[in-house]
Amino acid sequence: MATINPHGNAKTPVDLLITGGLVLTLNDRDEVFSVGAVAVTGDRIVAVGDASALLGALQPRELLDARDCLIMPGLINLHTHAAMTCFRGLADDLPLETWLHEHIFPAETKHVDEDNVYWGTLLAVAEMIRSGTTTLCDGYFCEDGAARAVVAGGIRAVCAQGVVDFPVPGVPDPSKNLETAEKFIRRWWGRSPRLTPSIFCHSPYTCSGETLRRGKALCLEYGVPFQIHVAETSGEVEESLRRHGCRPVAYMKTLDLLDSGTICHHAGWVDGHEIDLLAGFGAAVSHNPESNMKLASGVAPLPEMLGAGVRVGLGTDGCASNNNLDMLREMDTAAKLHKVHRLDPTVIAARTVVRMATSGGAAALGMPNDLGSLAPGKKADLITIDLDQPHLVPLYEPYSHLVYAARGADVRDAIIDGRVVMRNRELLTVDLERVMTEVRRIAKRIRP
Amino acid sequence: MATINPHGNAKTPVDLLITGGLVLTLNDRDEVFSVGAVAVTGDRIVAVGDASALLGALQPRELLDARDCLIMPGLINLHTHAAMTCFRGLADDLPLETWLHEHIFPAETKHVDEDNVYWGTLLAVAEMIRSGTTTLCDGYFCEDGAARAVVAGGIRAVCAQGVVDFPVPGVPDPSKNLETAEKFIRRWWGRSPRLTPSIFCHSPYTCSGETLRRGKALCLEYGVPFQIHVAETSGEVEESLRRHGCRPVAYMKTLDLLDSGTICHHAGWVDGHEIDLLAGFGAAVSHNPESNMKLASGVAPLPEMLGAGVRVGLGTDGCASNNNLDMLREMDTAAKLHKVHRLDPTVIAARTVVRMATSGGAAALGMPNDLGSLAPGKKADLITIDLDQPHLVPLYEPYSHLVYAARGADVRDAIIDGRVVMRNRELLTVDLERVMTEVRRIAKRIRP
Repeated sequence: MATINPHGNAKTPVDLLITGGLVLTLNDRDEVFSVGAVAVTGDRIVAVGDASALLGALQPRELLDARDCLIMPGLINLHTHAAMTCFRGLADDLPLETWLHEHIFPAETKHVDEDNVYWGTLLAVAEMIRSGTTTLCDGYFCEDGAARAVVAGGIRAVCAQGVVDFPVPGVPDPSKNLETAEKFIRRWWGRSPRLTPSIFCHSPYTCSGETLRRGKALCLEYGVPFQIHVAETSGEVEESLRRHGCRPVAYMKTLDLLDSGTICHHAGWVDGHEIDLLAGFGAAVSHNPESNMKLASGVAPLPEMLGAGVRVGLGTDGCASNNNLDMLREMDTAAKLHKVHRLDPTVIAARTVVRMATSGGAAALGMPNDLGSLAPGKKADLITIDLDQPHLVPLYEPYSHLVYAARGADVRDAIIDGRVVMRNRELLTVDLERVMTEVRRIAKRIRP
Repeated sequence: MATINPHGNAKTPVDLLITGGLVLTLNDRDEVFSVGAVAVTGDRIVAVGDASALLGALQPRELLDARDCLIMPGLINLHTHAAMTCFRGLADDLPLETWLHEHIFPAETKHVDEDNVYWGTLLAVAEMIRSGTTTLCDGYFCEDGAARAVVAGGIRAVCAQGVVDFPVPGVPDPSKNLETAEKFIRRWWGRSPRLTPSIFCHSPYTCSGETLRRGKALCLEYGVPFQIHVAETSGEVEESLRRHGCRPVAYMKTLDLLDSGTICHHAGWVDGHEIDLLAGFGAAVSHNPESNMKLASGVAPLPEMLGAGVRVGLGTDGCASNNNLDMLREMDTAAKLHKVHRLDPTVIAARTVVRMATSGGAAALGMPNDLGSLAPGKKADLITIDLDQPHLVPLYEPYSHLVYAARGADVRDAIIDGRVVMRNRELLTVDLERVMTEVRRIAKRIRP
């Protein structure tokens, strides 16, 4: 397994060796090393294998002892609006229209600016790293603030400037929405190896066909992901049928929006034909069960999408509709929701969910060669989970534990792009006290 | 609010003052103290109020500083089979019959004995205290082991000996099932102020009418709760209609099983008439959404039950069908599941769920005067939750945070029956290393 060249007896130097834990590689063969290790040099994994073999062959500059831990790829949160931590718990349990139009939209109009987006996103980054996420796929307004927070916080991200055909924070004149988005891409393209800029056209019902076409064309021009909310509610489907004579994903096809660079968020109300379109054109989907439950949007046809070969990853959505960013909790919910919805306990097994949260997300982001499993040559994005805790005893089956028993707080260490960003639950990249103080200050302005 | 008699200037001595936190009393008026305190003497709460007032009037022997914490009643887990921690993750994602008959029943037959039940329950007690549960309502076989673990672990519990009309661990001759249960009650009745013995007749389809009647009569004789699984699956309803000509709860009525001392676990497939029966006779219900989801049993008509005035508490069920005992996670799921099931985001609001997990459980157990809220005269069962963490910032609405953002790992301190059993996440009553070692040893025998 290890790609090591031990030059005679001399040990190969590596930067970092995470060793002694149960390694879930999540590679194509689902390889597991019961006492395993992962070696890192620079930003890449250079070897994965039995701990004794790697310790014998390698000379690590730094050693991370992961005995009693599970070692696995970092989780990929495929859909969030990170800065919405500022609105966490501001309004809940309300009819969708009341929630949006009387609470969220007014708060956004008044309080979203680049500074608030920076602090809100940095708080989200802290919460995400502390619960095992190493890559997020974000979209919001004033996204420069989010990009700055991602760079500062040490996480990996796709950050998208939001585009919509009405005035929004940072873009008072909607005719400038795509120009703003293109400037965002140009500003951040190639600036950090951890950051990919992107455009997030809010939805087929808030952007004109022309805006959607031009947004997608810009993404193709720069080779970056195109994101969109689509088929989130049944009401949206009805409106699409009325306005366009076809359902939302079918409408996207008429605009040439479907290809492997497009990520469709939610896709909760897609029919068989639309699933075939998504699969056929290679468009990706983020599944966000907790947000869909809390907003009462509906239950996506996940088994059918996976069955058709659609690339599906898992997301938490923003904090205003969840209200947490804990991917381990999301995994638990994803596994359970479809079972009760179908009255079939065999659908969406634990292993399927773990794959959605790792390799599924990597594929959706167009980064299957860099992220989503532990293998030599891949980016060194990995986490350890402390198994020596009462709620994780005994251990018969690690996939089951990850989904049904573990929680975000069990994540002990996080390595992103080869850098240890959390050690023994201490976050090394974010000044937690400072960021919590700043977000509390913002919240005081939101609700004095 | 405080029932204090400051004799002139002399301060009234109390044993313990938990002070400085945001106090959610969950009393009838939903009183909240933003910088509050709770005073305890012996096993009882003696005062609840503003921190400054209580600090001025009281002389505590011990002070627990709960600044940056939320202080609330301990959670009540109304349905579990605690010792099944030994089978956590042994088998998942299987058809119900395969799961039960090929995995769980054979494992129970071979491996359930008093010693294993003791260690499995003690592990559960550790997990539960560490996630905010201060009272559990248990039922299993070889329940003496569970009762011993409850006494040792410092938690409060209703412990029920399981009764079923076929041979089970500890009761090879089913004709002795009720005799065994009665002996269990006599052995534990009045032995610990934290322990109430009980009988758990497994279900209407595994116990004869005669067994059910006699089991209930024993409970009435000793004044202890009678527990039963009922209407968990649609298959059970069909069988009841076939065998008895009526649905399960209606069948229970024909046997005089319904009264305020009966706790019906699940009640997932009850119709309007049965809901009226439950409400009219004052029988209680435990709602167990995660188990119902994982086993694909169905979604209980919770809004209708609450609307009809049924006393409903929340439970996790056992570890083999969840696979965790985290009541905060269960609360999140309870709030979200019914919203998506009804496509209505307003049903089962956060506050409703917090009540189910506290006063709802207390009422169901027949202990509304002792448990479920913070008020002078009530038992001192309370927890603190550390709010100074990124995923709980900002704080607009504490009920929302408890349900949608907090997790078991956020519980910092736990006081049960006036005794601090966890301080700053250190469990003071259970030797964690020892109990994890013992359960791992048991697991090695279950799956060598």
